[in-house]
Amino acid sequence: MYRTHNCGELRMDNVGQTITLSGWLQASRDFGGMTFIDLRDRYGITQLVFNMEDDEALCNQARKLGREYVLKISGLVRERTNKNPNRPTGNIEIEVKSLEVLNAAKTPPFTIEEDTDGGEDLRMKYRYLDLRRKKVQDNIIFRSELAIETRKYLANKDFIEVETPVLIKSTPEGARDFVVPSRMNTGEFYALPQSPQTFKQILMVAGFDKYFQIVKCFRDEDLRADRQPEFTQIDCEMSFVTQEDILNTFEGLTKHLFKTTIGVDLADFPRISYDEAMEKYGSDKPDLRFDMAFTELNDVAQQKGFSVFDNAELVVGICATAQANAYSNKDIKALTEWMQQPQIGAKGLVYVKVNPDGTFKSSVGKFFSDDDLKVWANKMNAKPGDLLLILSGETEKTRKQLNNLRLEMGRRMGLMKEGDFKPLWVLDFPLLEWDEESNRFHAMHHPFTSPKKEDVDRMMAGDHETMKSLRADAYDLVINGSEIGGGSIRIHDRALQSRNFDLLGFSKEEAADQFGFLLGAFEYGAPPHGGIAFGFDRLCAVLKGQSSIRDFIAFPKNNQGRDMMIDAPATISAEQLEELALLLQKKEVER
Amino acid sequence: MYRTHNCGELRMDNVGQTITLSGWLQASRDFGGMTFIDLRDRYGITQLVFNMEDDEALCNQARKLGREYVLKISGLVRERTNKNPNRPTGNIEIEVKSLEVLNAAKTPPFTIEEDTDGGEDLRMKYRYLDLRRKKVQDNIIFRSELAIETRKYLANKDFIEVETPVLIKSTPEGARDFVVPSRMNTGEFYALPQSPQTFKQILMVAGFDKYFQIVKCFRDEDLRADRQPEFTQIDCEMSFVTQEDILNTFEGLTKHLFKTTIGVDLADFPRISYDEAMEKYGSDKPDLRFDMAFTELNDVAQQKGFSVFDNAELVVGICATAQANAYSNKDIKALTEWMQQPQIGAKGLVYVKVNPDGTFKSSVGKFFSDDDLKVWANKMNAKPGDLLLILSGETEKTRKQLNNLRLEMGRRMGLMKEGDFKPLWVLDFPLLEWDEESNRFHAMHHPFTSPKKEDVDRMMAGDHETMKSLRADAYDLVINGSEIGGGSIRIHDRALQSRNFDLLGFSKEEAADQFGFLLGAFEYGAPPHGGIAFGFDRLCAVLKGQSSIRDFIAFPKNNQGRDMMIDAPATISAEQLEELALLLQKKEVER
Repeated sequence: MYRTHNCGELRMDNVGQTITLSGWLQASRDFGGMTFIDLRDRYGITQLVFNMEDDEALCNQARKLGREYVLKISGLVRERTNKNPNRPTGNIEIEVKSLEVLNAAKTPPFTIEEDTDGGEDLRMKYRYLDLRRKKVQDNIIFRSELAIETRKYLANKDFIEVETPVLIKSTPEGARDFVVPSRMNTGEFYALPQSPQTFKQILMVAGFDKYFQIVKCFRDEDLRADRQPEFTQIDCEMSFVTQEDILNTFEGLTKHLFKTTIGVDLADFPRISYDEAMEKYGSDKPDLRFDMAFTELNDVAQQKGFSVFDNAELVVGICATAQANAYSNKDIKALTEWMQQPQIGAKGLVYVKVNPDGTFKSSVGKFFSDDDLKVWANKMNAKPGDLLLILSGETEKTRKQLNNLRLEMGRRMGLMKEGDFKPLWVLDFPLLEWDEESNRFHAMHHPFTSPKKEDVDRMMAGDHETMKSLRADAYDLVINGSEIGGGSIRIHDRALQSRNFDLLGFSKEEAADQFGFLLGAFEYGAPPHGGIAFGFDRLCAVLKGQSSIRDFIAFPKNNQGRDMMIDAPATISAEQLEELALLLQKKEVER
Repeated sequence: MYRTHNCGELRMDNVGQTITLSGWLQASRDFGGMTFIDLRDRYGITQLVFNMEDDEALCNQARKLGREYVLKISGLVRERTNKNPNRPTGNIEIEVKSLEVLNAAKTPPFTIEEDTDGGEDLRMKYRYLDLRRKKVQDNIIFRSELAIETRKYLANKDFIEVETPVLIKSTPEGARDFVVPSRMNTGEFYALPQSPQTFKQILMVAGFDKYFQIVKCFRDEDLRADRQPEFTQIDCEMSFVTQEDILNTFEGLTKHLFKTTIGVDLADFPRISYDEAMEKYGSDKPDLRFDMAFTELNDVAQQKGFSVFDNAELVVGICATAQANAYSNKDIKALTEWMQQPQIGAKGLVYVKVNPDGTFKSSVGKFFSDDDLKVWANKMNAKPGDLLLILSGETEKTRKQLNNLRLEMGRRMGLMKEGDFKPLWVLDFPLLEWDEESNRFHAMHHPFTSPKKEDVDRMMAGDHETMKSLRADAYDLVINGSEIGGGSIRIHDRALQSRNFDLLGFSKEEAADQFGFLLGAFEYGAPPHGGIAFGFDRLCAVLKGQSSIRDFIAFPKNNQGRDMMIDAPATISAEQLEELALLLQKKEVER
């Protein structure tokens, strides 16, 4: 037997008991006559004591042990004279009577502490050591708890968890698929699912009524820091529901998760339309921990002789409360340059400072009188001491630029407070999005999303321009500026689905080849249905107030899609390629 | 709003209420003046009534609806005059006031009934219709419940569910991997996991202490009826445990699942060694719903002049209780031929009938006196009326043949009773298995399994023959002759693991290349650990007394690894191949 207790559970009640513990040597302190060892496991840390006077041989053995050695000890629980109130086991210690080294350990390449000295690459390679750090381990345990609470809530609401297949069929719509060559059907490939979308719809056609799954999904995309080639979704679908039913159910789930895992009570979630979100925040995932909403100034800033504004499609600004004094000319210049970086691409930045005496200081002072600026300030609800920041240009671009500026000002002003959570439903997304580059429509959500009921006739019969104005029963859940989930009411009518495939540029053959089973299913009694999927990795990170999803994945891949620990992907054998009837293209010689 | 209630919940208490239901038309009965419709959803069936006298137009509309139409109705709940006690909603019916056809349905290609008229291929192609059948839907819902109870039990025992990666690295040991070409690292491949084995061990090294996961695994094998290329495991690992800890934990899980999902109390599980299982039942997964254990007869049946027995390594038989009269000479001949079929391969079959008067009738009567046969009968605890069936030959083959015969007799005698569950732990498996064909050792469980403590020294230093006698801390859970799970205590010492790789024929380079991360991890403080994995699909089937796992998988693949509904695998585009830098080998021209 390796232990009678774990390293986190002994208390004053256990004093006098003879116990056995196993764990890792976290730290040791040698005071000549006495040696202390902190023994660690998942559950906590317990202090061990070795005394020269009691057992010299044992004490000498203990002094030689290094960090991360795996030990099994037996001994007597006793009260500590020097208690440690910061540790749950801090009132007791173990007078060790016997010691067995279960495994030795080389010196770890970085310290197993809250703040380690190891760089990211090193920690990824030795992920088994990185995962010993309490912070990282806590994240993974938190993820496990979040999954438990998710399942508890959904099972209570009659949702059934159904496993959908991982080996499916490649469909070019959307992101790039990972594919899996078939040995039994050479020349053919499976694909890994980007989501179980069509399967969950099939489950609705099959009458499962309420489906969910916490499920791995796969996208072969060029990776950014917060993307992973495999990621996890809370995937849901419901039959005989309207958008309102879905919003209520998953607002309920979100509140449940916040309450049970981090003890936060969320108020009812505000809702805004996609159009309003773009107008007020220049983003379909605004961070509402602070307001600083956009004010459009065309009616008061144009036709006053400032040609930059006069020629702009949109003049729009934000009011940074009490920031007038915080920004010197030099600061404004730096902020302007920040806005001009290629990733943002603003041409310039106009500022107006509202002085305490009612006057104004502005970079466009020669074009506008104080009376003009006063109109702006009023329109933006500015008070003395506030700083107005104004951009102009083409509507969509300018809004995106101002979104960047708003978020940057929020950061600088400390308005993104830890522990503050501001969820938001964004509704009424456009159904289709015209892509100038490829000269075709893309599905804004995905090809199975239904237009709003009142837009169905226009969609079936309308012209090209009409299509751009169609609105969908599609919705996103946004928390603190992160998109946590999105979903839609789906099409359940074959003719409407076919029309959507047409609009998206599928030929009849392509539609039949890729989604024939779904079109077929719609002919055999498909119920009205809709659903949503939450990004589980992102949800973990947002709940814990962290920015990287990678810290919530036990074995993440790096930006090159590589698992640094096992060193994958890797070459495979000639026999494997032969069995799959595959040849590798010769790489071009690099110069 | 599509419904106020579901189709399974209305009772006498609801009489008088105006309600709305949505669902599928299961059946309709037209009696001229009145039309009855059974409306179905996941929760049940409710009877709808349309009356010519009340609303002729509505009734005429209802008469035209076909099977599987999706309907929304509103109406009044009323008591039925002609109650149906077999249906939970059988006391009431709905007097329909309004009807909306939510979707029409073509006539299904097979009936959506308990026993359908559809063949397997048709049902697989239209899986969304097959899944509407109550029997199939109940299986999938049962699977969901089993997962919930599994998670409940393990979470209560401090297990943490951790997701391990799906995109890993190919390792040739064991079955064949599915591979995934990497676009970002052309010429390299990921592999899909056959199990999360190394990752769960890494989690133990990382200090997670108790891990589980209900997880998809993948094997590219030629499929038999009860195999699937993707299957699901309850995968577990524990640190600081002995075999006893693991057996107790997962015996507890199994009892919990039987109790909570099908209300069966299981007694403590018997345990036998692998050697004993082979001796007594000729199988490492004996069905213990009946005994009919083997009796070895070498000492009493050899050296009596019957050369077939005299030349055999083993003479062994079973006693079929009270079957003497049931088997005519013709029946015995047919049974012998059954044993001679190539899949079993017995040369012949010796029988002895124990007559009521103490005499014997036997196919080997001329070689053995009644006194001889009486000794056999006594040794086999045979009573008058029993039938002894005896095989001889090479030990291993003969046991396998007799295992087939024992199971066949059990089936014929009705000893495999529905609702009878006989779990069993099989222990002490050999560590290594010598494969004559490839002239090398294979791991009986897998390459990470630890030899028993007392065998470690012999393993590190012994010769070739010694290796064959090594025993492992490896165990299987068997229920009613099905292997439900298996596991082992793992090696946690680098030197011992290296030795095992040596024995299994890995070169140092291969071991480092494929499992270097694990060998490395063992140097940084690996705890003693072990685990188990349950086949989740099989567990579902065994609990429900069914033989095919396919009936518990929402979207199974057929024996060619094909998803008949979505028609996968399929060809991919030239662009996809080009991005992956792959070429297809030209297929040889078939004649």
